[in-house]
Amino acid sequence: MTVAVFPGTFDPVTNGHLDLIKRSARIFAKLIVAIFDHPVKKPLFSVDERCNLLEQATHGLANVEIDSFSNILLVFYARQRQASVIVRGVRAIADFEYETQMTSMNRHLDDTIETVYLTPRSEYGYVASSLVKEVATYGGNVEHLVPPPVLVALKEKLQQRT
Amino acid sequence: MTVAVFPGTFDPVTNGHLDLIKRSARIFAKLIVAIFDHPVKKPLFSVDERCNLLEQATHGLANVEIDSFSNILLVFYARQRQASVIVRGVRAIADFEYETQMTSMNRHLDDTIETVYLTPRSEYGYVASSLVKEVATYGGNVEHLVPPPVLVALKEKLQQRT
Amino acid sequence: MTVAVFPGTFDPVTNGHLDLIKRSARIFAKLIVAIFDHPVKKPLFSVDERCNLLEQATHGLANVEIDSFSNILLVFYARQRQASVIVRGVRAIADFEYETQMTSMNRHLDDTIETVYLTPRSEYGYVASSLVKEVATYGGNVEHLVPPPVLVALKEKLQQRT
Amino acid sequence: MTVAVFPGTFDPVTNGHLDLIKRSARIFAKLIVAIFDHPVKKPLFSVDERCNLLEQATHGLANVEIDSFSNILLVFYARQRQASVIVRGVRAIADFEYETQMTSMNRHLDDTIETVYLTPRSEYGYVASSLVKEVATYGGNVEHLVPPPVLVALKEKLQQRT
Amino acid sequence: MTVAVFPGTFDPVTNGHLDLIKRSARIFAKLIVAIFDHPVKKPLFSVDERCNLLEQATHGLANVEIDSFSNILLVFYARQRQASVIVRGVRAIADFEYETQMTSMNRHLDDTIETVYLTPRSEYGYVASSLVKEVATYGGNVEHLVPPPVLVALKEKLQQRT
Amino acid sequence: MTVAVFPGTFDPVTNGHLDLIKRSARIFAKLIVAIFDHPVKKPLFSVDERCNLLEQATHGLANVEIDSFSNILLVFYARQRQASVIVRGVRAIADFEYETQMTSMNRHLDDTIETVYLTPRSEYGYVASSLVKEVATYGGNVEHLVPPPVLVALKEKLQQRT
Repeated sequence: MTVAVFPGTFDPVTNGHLDLIKRSARIFAKLIVAIFDHPVKKPLFSVDERCNLLEQATHGLANVEIDSFSNILLVFYARQRQASVIVRGVRAIADFEYETQMTSMNRHLDDTIETVYLTPRSEYGYVASSLVKEVATYGGNVEHLVPPPVLVALKEKLQQRT
Repeated sequence: MTVAVFPGTFDPVTNGHLDLIKRSARIFAKLIVAIFDHPVKKPLFSVDERCNLLEQATHGLANVEIDSFSNILLVFYARQRQASVIVRGVRAIADFEYETQMTSMNRHLDDTIETVYLTPRSEYGYVASSLVKEVATYGGNVEHLVPPPVLVALKEKLQQRT
Repeated sequence: MTVAVFPGTFDPVTNGHLDLIKRSARIFAKLIVAIFDHPVKKPLFSVDERCNLLEQATHGLANVEIDSFSNILLVFYARQRQASVIVRGVRAIADFEYETQMTSMNRHLDDTIETVYLTPRSEYGYVASSLVKEVATYGGNVEHLVPPPVLVALKEKLQQRT
Repeated sequence: MTVAVFPGTFDPVTNGHLDLIKRSARIFAKLIVAIFDHPVKKPLFSVDERCNLLEQATHGLANVEIDSFSNILLVFYARQRQASVIVRGVRAIADFEYETQMTSMNRHLDDTIETVYLTPRSEYGYVASSLVKEVATYGGNVEHLVPPPVLVALKEKLQQRT
Repeated sequence: MTVAVFPGTFDPVTNGHLDLIKRSARIFAKLIVAIFDHPVKKPLFSVDERCNLLEQATHGLANVEIDSFSNILLVFYARQRQASVIVRGVRAIADFEYETQMTSMNRHLDDTIETVYLTPRSEYGYVASSLVKEVATYGGNVEHLVPPPVLVALKEKLQQRT
Repeated sequence: MTVAVFPGTFDPVTNGHLDLIKRSARIFAKLIVAIFDHPVKKPLFSVDERCNLLEQATHGLANVEIDSFSNILLVFYARQRQASVIVRGVRAIADFEYETQMTSMNRHLDDTIETVYLTPRSEYGYVASSLVKEVATYGGNVEHLVPPPVLVALKEKLQQRT
C-alpha cells in the first residue's frame, strides 16, 4: 500500500490543486495533503482556515487526509507519516527546474522516498493561488478557479481587510 | 492495485532507465516496461534483442514485466493492459515540454489514465541511449552507463557492423 | 490599415490555428493566412486541399484571406502582400526560442515588418497538426481538435492510405 | 481602429522600452503607454517623474499617449480605455512563462481583450530598468541604454541619494 | 598569463563551488575567488568568515587567491585586478538566462573582459548554498555537500542561533 | 600554456563564429578551430572549402589554427591535440541543455578536459549557419552576417546549384 504526500502552501486551495489531488487519490492507496506552515511567508489564511477549506473541498474523497507540518524538512515529514512518495504539481518550466533540484536534495537525504510530478489539466495551468488572490482583491471573478467554499472565504477575508 | 506502464524505445536500456524502473517498481504494484516498436526509426537492436536485454537487466524485480507494442496509441495500449498510470522519465526541459503536450493529448483520449513524471538520479541525467551508442561506436568506455549484458551486446553488435 | 500575415504549414488546420486566426482577425484590418509550400517536407494534404480546408474553416470571417507562398522568404512575401505584421502562434518555450531567432533575422532583412506573437487558448496548447495526424492514424478521436471539414478530410485521406 | 495598451513600471523608461513603443505605434492606430503604479514596489522615480520622462522620450510619436493606473486589474483598465489589445515585451524565457500565465488569466476575465507579445531588438535584450539603475548607481556608463532625458534624470536622482 | 575572477556570495562555499574552483584553477594561470559583499542581502556568515572558509577549502591550490569586493561593479573590479576573464557557474536554465543578460551588460561596460560559463559536475547540480543552509537548519545531513571546515562552521553558527 | 579546441561544423563560418573565435583567442594561449567532418550530414561546403574559408576569416589571429577531425570522439581528439579545454558557443536555452549533457559525457570519458561556454554578442544571437544559407538561397542579403570571403563563396556555390 503506497502512501503519498502532496505538500503545498494552499493559501487557498484552487481548482488546479483539487484536480491534482483527485488524480493522485486515484493512483495512490492513501494521499496526505500536507499544508506547509512556512515560518516567513505571511499567508492570507491561517493554517486552520486552509485546513478547513481543504477538508471541505476534498469532502467525499475517502482516501485523502488533510494535515499540516512545520519546523521539519519535507522528506523527514514524509518518512514520519510512513509515506514513500512525494507528489508535486508542475505548471511551468521554472517550477520544474526548482523541483528537480529539490528532488535531488531529497534523494540525498532519504533515497527510499520518491518524488513524482503531475501536471494539472491544461486549462488550470495559470491558476496559481497568488494570482487568484490578486484578481479577487481587485474585484475580478474567480468563481471558476476555486472550489465554492473558497470563493465564500475569499470574499469574507477580503472584506475584513478593507 | 495500481498497474503502471513505462514506455520507451530502450535501444538499448541504460543505467538511467534502470534507475527509473527500480524507483517505479517500488511505487506501483506492477510495472510493465513496454518497448515501443516504432514503424520508422531504425533501431540498433531488434525488439526481441531489446526485450531480452531488459529481461536480464530487471532480473530479480518481481513486479516488473517486459512487453512491447506497436500500431496502437500508448494510451490505448495502457488501457488494454489495465494500467491506470503512464510513467515517463524526464531529463531535461525540452523533454518536459514535449511530455506535457503528450500528457494533455492522452488525457483528451482517456482521462482515467494518469501520467506521472520521474527524474533520473542527477548522475544519470546525460545517459541517453543515442549518446551511449555514439560513444561506444567510437571506442569510448560506456561500462558505467549500461547494465553488464548491454555492454556485451553493444560490443558484439558494433563488431558485426565493421 | 494594418495588414497581417499568419504563415504556417496548416497540414491540416486545427482548432488551435483557428483560435489564433479569429483572435488575429479581430486585431488587424486584414489577415492573410498564408500556407507555406515547403520544398522538402512531405505533407499529408496538398496545398490546394489545405487551402480548401482553411477556406471552409474560416468561412464567415470577412477580413480573412487564404493564400500560399513558396520559393520566397516570408518577409519578402509579407512585403509583396503589403503586410506590415507577421503573426506567429507560440505554444511552448522551444517554439519561442526558434521564433525569436527568426524575428531577428526578419528584422535584419526588413525592419519595417514587425513580428507579433500570440498564444493559443490554454486548452489548445497541445493541439499540433503532427500530433493530430498521428492520433487519427491510430484511430484516436480528434473530433474536438479540428474543424468539422478537416475531420471528414482526415478520415478520407487516411482510408486512402490503407 | 485598434487601440493598444503597453503597460509597465517604466522606472525609468529604457531604449529597450522605446524600441517596443515605436514598433507598437506603427502597428496600432493608438498606443497607450500605461505606467502601473504598484502599491508595494518602491520605485526610484515617482509616477509623475516616470510619466514626464516617457512624454519626453516619445515626443513626436503622434499616436502615443502616456497614462498611469493603479488599484485596478490591467484587463479592466484596458476595457475602460476601450483598448482591445495588450502589448507585452518579452526578453527571456522566464518572462514568457509568466506572461502566458497572465494572458490566460486575462482571457478568463475578458476574452475580448487580446495580448500580443513583441521582442525587443536583440541588442536591447539585456537592457532592464533594474540593471540600468544598478549600473548607474556604481558609476557605469548607461548613455546608450536610455533616452537622453533619462540619463540626466538618473544622474540627478542618484546624486540626491548620496 | 590569463587571470580569471570567480565571483559569488559563497555563504558558505559548497562542494559545488569547490568543484568549479578546481576546474577553473586548472584552466587559468591565476584564479581570484571574489566574495561579493552585497549591501542588502543578510548573509549567515560575515565576509571574514566566508573568506576564512574559502581559504581553508582551497588550501593547496597554489594559483587561487581569495578576495572580496563591494561598492563596485564586477567588471570594474575585474579590470582593477587585471583579470580578463569572469568565470560563472551555471546550474540551471534560469541561471543561464540571467547570466547571459549580465554578460551582455558587462560587455557593454568593458568589451575586453570576457565571461565564460562552467557547469558543475552533474551530482553537484542541486547543491546551492541557500538549500544547504535550509537543510542544515532542520537537522538534515549536509556532510557530503560542503567541505569539512564548512560543516563545522555551519553547526556552530546554527547553534548560536537557537 | 592552455590549448583550447573550438569544434563545429562551420558550414560556413559566420560572424557569430568569428566573434567567439576572437574572444577565445584572447583568453587561451592557443586555439584550435576544429571542423567536425560529420559522417551523415550533407554540408554545402566540403571540409577543404570550410577550412579554407576559416583560414581567410581568421587571418591575422596568430594563435589560431584551423584543423578538422572525423571518426573520433571530440574529447579524444582534444586529448590527441594536447588541448585541456573545449570551447562551446551557446546561443539559446535549447543549445545549453544539449551542451550540458555532452559536457557530462565528456567528463565521464576524460575528466581532465574541461568544457567552457561562451555566448556570442547579442546582435549575433540569431546568426546560425543553417539560417544564413536559407536566407542566401532565396536572395536575402547576408552581407553583415558572414565574413567577406564567405559572402563570395556562398554566391558561387548557390549559382552552381541552379
